[in-house]
Parts: sequence; structure tokens; C-alpha cells
Amino acid sequence: MSGELPGTKIDHLGIAVKSIAQARAFYEALGLRVTHEETVEHERVKTAMLPVGESRVELLEPTEEDSPVGKFLAKRGEGMHHVALQVEDITAAMERLKALGARFISDEVKVGAGGHLYFFVHPSSAGGVLVEIVQPAAESTHG
Amino acid sequence: MSGELPGTKIDHLGIAVKSIAQARAFYEALGLRVTHEETVEHERVKTAMLPVGESRVELLEPTEEDSPVGKFLAKRGEGMHHVALQVEDITAAMERLKALGARFISDEVKVGAGGHLYFFVHPSSAGGVLVEIVQPAAESTHG
Repeated sequence: MSGELPGTKIDHLGIAVKSIAQARAFYEALGLRVTHEETVEHERVKTAMLPVGESRVELLEPTEEDSPVGKFLAKRGEGMHHVALQVEDITAAMERLKALGARFISDEVKVGAGGHLYFFVHPSSAGGVLVEIVQPAAESTHG
Repeated sequence: MSGELPGTKIDHLGIAVKSIAQARAFYEALGLRVTHEETVEHERVKTAMLPVGESRVELLEPTEEDSPVGKFLAKRGEGMHHVALQVEDITAAMERLKALGARFISDEVKVGAGGHLYFFVHPSSAGGVLVEIVQPAAESTHG
């Protein structure tokens, strides 16, 4: 486990709320602004992104009660749903966590809508926190 | 509520764990390093700080079961205890939140051990998340 994985930072905090319209006012009072809103159909969730420093807050509002975030709200109420950490080398991150015996939500790296890579670590391996590991989409490098 | 509050960023994520010795391995596998450990006697909690980008992860391990973090663990299990947002003007932040009708853990700004200022917003006013608002200690300015 020795050696650094450079560039790790908090990518975003995913916060499950009943109503984005209500929850955003708190963050707006602190000077944050919603820069992007989106409905992710296959997750049945509405999202609002509020950049904060090098990270962002993502408010998550379910569009249906039996969606993943809807079930989370029913069970635990509003609150932190997941923490996303951005790394530069997601394959190296997964290998290190596998070597540690960490438990994953799925055992492979997935490709997100914007081309970013991600996987989720089970809360039992991360101090009770659902952790998403993210690697940004590669920028095109013409040379 | 218009106007920006510049400089807001995530200061730290406070994560309640049963054992820092066990929980740190996950973050160390991602390249984070414990740079500071401390026992805060009056809170009856051991803390380990792991910088990540402009923020840090703070692992919180209770030294007694009936301490605030010990009670949190007994009730909710391991997981996110609080999110700290750093602002440049904590008085302005509190005024804006008061104007919004936000509920606070205590209605005044407090001074921390290192000279930083802080207050806590009740989770019911912040999407179910216990939010700490922090202003760093003023640096000495000699003219």
C-alpha cells in the first residue's frame, strides 16, 4: 500500500433530499449556485449540482418512491447518500482496494454518461460511508 | 439572499468510526495520509486528519460510549457525522441563514482551539446533514 496516488480530491457529496426546491435555499444562502440540473431517467432521480471550491454538492431527489434514492429516503431519511472521491488512476485505486479486501457494490469499473469512470465501495469497507471512486473522462490529446 | 459569499469550500468531512486504526487503511489505500492525530478531551473523541485536495477527511473515534460521537455510533452506526464548509465571513453566513429561518445547534459563533470560528446548523435545515460552518483563524497582519 505504499506510494502516493496523486490528485485525489473530493469530487462531490451526494445528498438525498425530498425536495431540491426546498433544500437548495440553504446552500444558496452560503453563496453556492445551482449550475446544472438533470433528471437521470434510469436512476429515477433529479439532480442539482452546486460547485463548492474544487468539489460540488449534488442534491438528489427521487422521482419515484421505489427508486434507489427513494428507498434510501424511506429507510434513513434525508442526508448524506454518498461521497465521491476523484482519483487520477481508477484501475490502480481498485487494485489497491482489492488487495485490502474491500467490498464493492460491483466488482468492475463502469463508464458514466459523460465518459467518466466510476465504481462504488460498500459502506462496510469505508467507515459506514458509501464511497464512489471517480476518474474524469480523458481529455482528447492531439499532438 | 443575492450576492456571493466568496471562498466557500469543503473544509472537512467528519466520519464517525469505531476504530481509527481499522478505518484509515481504506483512505491510505487511496493515497491519503494521516498528517495529524489528536485526542479532544472535552469531546471525548480521538481524531485523525487526512488531507484530500483542498479539504480533509477527519476520522472520529469516541473514547467513551456516552460521548457525543459514541452516542451517534450507538444510534446510527459508522458513517458521516458532519460536513464542514469553510467560509470567509462567518457572521454574514450566520445572518443569511437566520434570515432563511435555519435552525442552529447553538445560536452563536464559537471560537475553536486553534482560533478558528464555527457554528453548527441543525440537520433539519440542511437536507438531513449536520453542517458545521467554519472560518479559519485570522492570520496575524503586521503593517
